Amino acid sequence: MDNLGEVLKKLREAAGFISGDHIAGGLGVSRTAVWKYMNQLERYGYDIDKSKGKGYRLINTPDRLYAWEIDRYRTSAKIGSKIIHRDNLDSTNSFAFSLAMGGEPEGTCVVAESQSKGRGRLGRKWSSPESTNIYLSVILRPSVHPSVVYPITFLSSLAVSDTIEQSTDLKPTLKWPNDVLIGPRKISGTLIELSTEADMVRFVVIGIGLNVNLEMKDMDREIKPKATSFLAETKKTYERPRVCGILLSNLERYYGVFKDEGPRAICDIWEEKAQICGKYLEINQMGEVYSGRAKGIDRDGAILLEINGTTKKILAGDVNF
Amino acid sequence: MDNLGEVLKKLREAAGFISGDHIAGGLGVSRTAVWKYMNQLERYGYDIDKSKGKGYRLINTPDRLYAWEIDRYRTSAKIGSKIIHRDNLDSTNSFAFSLAMGGEPEGTCVVAESQSKGRGRLGRKWSSPESTNIYLSVILRPSVHPSVVYPITFLSSLAVSDTIEQSTDLKPTLKWPNDVLIGPRKISGTLIELSTEADMVRFVVIGIGLNVNLEMKDMDREIKPKATSFLAETKKTYERPRVCGILLSNLERYYGVFKDEGPRAICDIWEEKAQICGKYLEINQMGEVYSGRAKGIDRDGAILLEINGTTKKILAGDVNF
Repeated sequence: MDNLGEVLKKLREAAGFISGDHIAGGLGVSRTAVWKYMNQLERYGYDIDKSKGKGYRLINTPDRLYAWEIDRYRTSAKIGSKIIHRDNLDSTNSFAFSLAMGGEPEGTCVVAESQSKGRGRLGRKWSSPESTNIYLSVILRPSVHPSVVYPITFLSSLAVSDTIEQSTDLKPTLKWPNDVLIGPRKISGTLIELSTEADMVRFVVIGIGLNVNLEMKDMDREIKPKATSFLAETKKTYERPRVCGILLSNLERYYGVFKDEGPRAICDIWEEKAQICGKYLEINQMGEVYSGRAKGIDRDGAILLEINGTTKKILAGDVNF
Repeated sequence: MDNLGEVLKKLREAAGFISGDHIAGGLGVSRTAVWKYMNQLERYGYDIDKSKGKGYRLINTPDRLYAWEIDRYRTSAKIGSKIIHRDNLDSTNSFAFSLAMGGEPEGTCVVAESQSKGRGRLGRKWSSPESTNIYLSVILRPSVHPSVVYPITFLSSLAVSDTIEQSTDLKPTLKWPNDVLIGPRKISGTLIELSTEADMVRFVVIGIGLNVNLEMKDMDREIKPKATSFLAETKKTYERPRVCGILLSNLERYYGVFKDEGPRAICDIWEEKAQICGKYLEINQMGEVYSGRAKGIDRDGAILLEINGTTKKILAGDVNF
């Protein structure tokens, strides 16, 4: 794919037409090879003007999350150094998990245009229509004890939140444990799945669903009242590869904090950004509802709630509004 | 397999020969079916005397961990209700893990006569020669937060320790985090592998290696100074299906404690049994050596060491003698 990316770069650099000779010379390949690359690009959905006399001209880029498109906007060294793109997957997380089981190294990403069995936290469905959003999974292999792996959820939400701020004028907020909201509506969710031994993590798969160009009218009926997207909020569409490239860069930055400064540092950043301390919250933990003032986030990701003077630690649940 | 088990039971109940008619009547099947079962048992390695006039007689039982043999000694209701037996597996844990990924329910067990890639904790090898020991993996699906799953390691060691006491005159001791010893030598190890979300465990695979009829002379050179077996200690051989059946029953009992009384209860039992409190220990944590007086076990399985008046929490490591 590297040469394909180079060909695309040359097509884009040229204001108009660029000759086959010119591209061939730049890449050190034959003119026949260039001709083959053009056909390949067409098969990938690129619209290319071919003129016997003038050469080639890029007319249109398809709206796809191809690795070489994401790479244009990615500044990360490791996360996204290999990107596997599929038109459709059951679930990018399930696919990435099976790759990781087979030894796939840290940093490999999986993106899909659509998911037929997109999953959210606690076995919930994640609505995943085609070529409108970002469905991304990243394989990480941190050398940590399983009890300190939870902040990776926060790391992911922070990366998403920064990505939204860097791509739009929106002001995202964070909701415990794993959501990013615009106002009261969910724009992104994270699903962390791990394979571990009792005392050592083998790998982590971060799954991120981020609603980008999803139109309100195309939302599943059951999520419509609670969901939103870049498009629904701003009435503009966005280049998904660009958003995805920024997201990968942000993930790498926060993963660096996680590794260098420790999981607690991520909890602190999340806690600060979410402005959770002192807030009055109602949390549903498997049917049991607790309400109280939030005191902060525990090292294992639990929320600490002050209820009638005593501190209740809530490990898993849903925050009600 | 149920009818095979019934046929075996009838063969065993009969002091000598039992007629095909008798067995057929008891099972409600034809004499031809009985004849087929006998052939099947022979293929499984059972030695059966067939006499035209007198019927069938069981002469010898093969030394195999067949489900129906283990079932004779198993009192557990759920753990071991399905037992998958293989002559050889790469690793019973890897096989059970992939079954669990595919939705295999709680309680299913995998046993193998030998493992070609038997694994211990932290990616270490577990020596697994044929038909001498027990290589067992159990799938559990506890509804718990990942941070409280660690005591399942202790639960497993406790079940193994009781099994040794119930099968032999040996006095096993427990070594943090996952070993069962006879004197200074390892007789059993546990490898816990999990698939979890950030805040919910999906499944746990308990892997247990227990050295039963392994002869000292057949031990790998590198483990010989540190390993032992029932046979090496007592100069007697043991019926592996019986030991395995007792082990499954003990696992179910301690899993009941884990679920009903909570993970902390398991830590307490382990702490008491291991008599760890107050002991002077030297622990190697990834190359860093800590020595001090053990204060106990933390809720996430970490060992608390008092070093010069301050408490150091050690999450993973190896205890030196």
